[in-house]
Amino acid sequence: MVNYPNKKTGNKQINFSNRGATLEEDINETNEYYLAHNKAVIHKKPTPIQIVKVDYPRRSAAKITEAYFKIASTTDYNGVYQGKYIDFEAKETENLTVFPLSNLHLHQIEHLKNVYQHGGIAFILVRFKKLARTFVLFYEQLEKIINTKEMTRHIKIEQFATQGFEIETKLHPRVDYLKAIDLYIQIN
Amino acid sequence: MVNYPNKKTGNKQINFSNRGATLEEDINETNEYYLAHNKAVIHKKPTPIQIVKVDYPRRSAAKITEAYFKIASTTDYNGVYQGKYIDFEAKETENLTVFPLSNLHLHQIEHLKNVYQHGGIAFILVRFKKLARTFVLFYEQLEKIINTKEMTRHIKIEQFATQGFEIETKLHPRVDYLKAIDLYIQIN
Repeated sequence: MVNYPNKKTGNKQINFSNRGATLEEDINETNEYYLAHNKAVIHKKPTPIQIVKVDYPRRSAAKITEAYFKIASTTDYNGVYQGKYIDFEAKETENLTVFPLSNLHLHQIEHLKNVYQHGGIAFILVRFKKLARTFVLFYEQLEKIINTKEMTRHIKIEQFATQGFEIETKLHPRVDYLKAIDLYIQIN
Repeated sequence: MVNYPNKKTGNKQINFSNRGATLEEDINETNEYYLAHNKAVIHKKPTPIQIVKVDYPRRSAAKITEAYFKIASTTDYNGVYQGKYIDFEAKETENLTVFPLSNLHLHQIEHLKNVYQHGGIAFILVRFKKLARTFVLFYEQLEKIINTKEMTRHIKIEQFATQGFEIETKLHPRVDYLKAIDLYIQIN
């Protein structure tokens, strides 16, 4: 830990997530921290791109001149923690009370289900931006919520709070989601 | 197993890998087979691209007009098998006797090492194209070969044969590499 010279006591109220960092940036920083501190090897997958045209200019790198974004067939993050396979999708919402399920693609939910069925640890990591609250919701709970009788189109923040794990935003690592995984491993 | 009506006996010499399919195509087919048969969830990661310019034409999809290939910081394939984290890099070589280590980036070897140290199953999958022979070499053996006193710049095919596992090319799935993982799990 760096001991900041001007650090004041009682600064627990500082809302680090208001510095403007996106959830993706926070997770990338966290994954770098995990790797550097030998805790886990978890990476973000590259964005899937459909490449249509590539130019090969002389003496310089190949240049892609026409390409399109593809819909991801899996999730954004995966890796290994204590030998176990970890897989998750991360999303931010501006919403104050619910997380709209339209933020997840059906095949992403299907992928999380596959991972869970093969013994991996699958979850979604959701940040309510304006509230600066971040939650981990494991696939089992996500499935229960989705499979309720009424056609669920969103997950309430209370459901995250009671059926998921809240992750405190810190300075370093910013989103310490392994804490939720540790609890999950203890319980299961 | 599909029972092909015209199947002849003694056709073991048929070299399926001469049909022109690349190793990547064969592995993708194999991974689809594993997913469809509920054996494992293993995917190829998208190619990492540095996006520089994106056009947003009216009423149509965002078009990337300038982008470059980035060097991959990890490996091409990862996923979950029986709860275990699987991670590998696949390479083809035209060489008849050795696999030049220049085919692997240093940070890819470093990544495989990290995976191994965190309890994941890490390996390289190498095909000698002209010989139609495909091998799995687990990280532990790869490390031993790399760390010999003389500066190793390649791995001999005999080293793959004795320290790795040869994967027979089949019709379906084409590169049944889980067989090597099963043996590895038994031994370890």
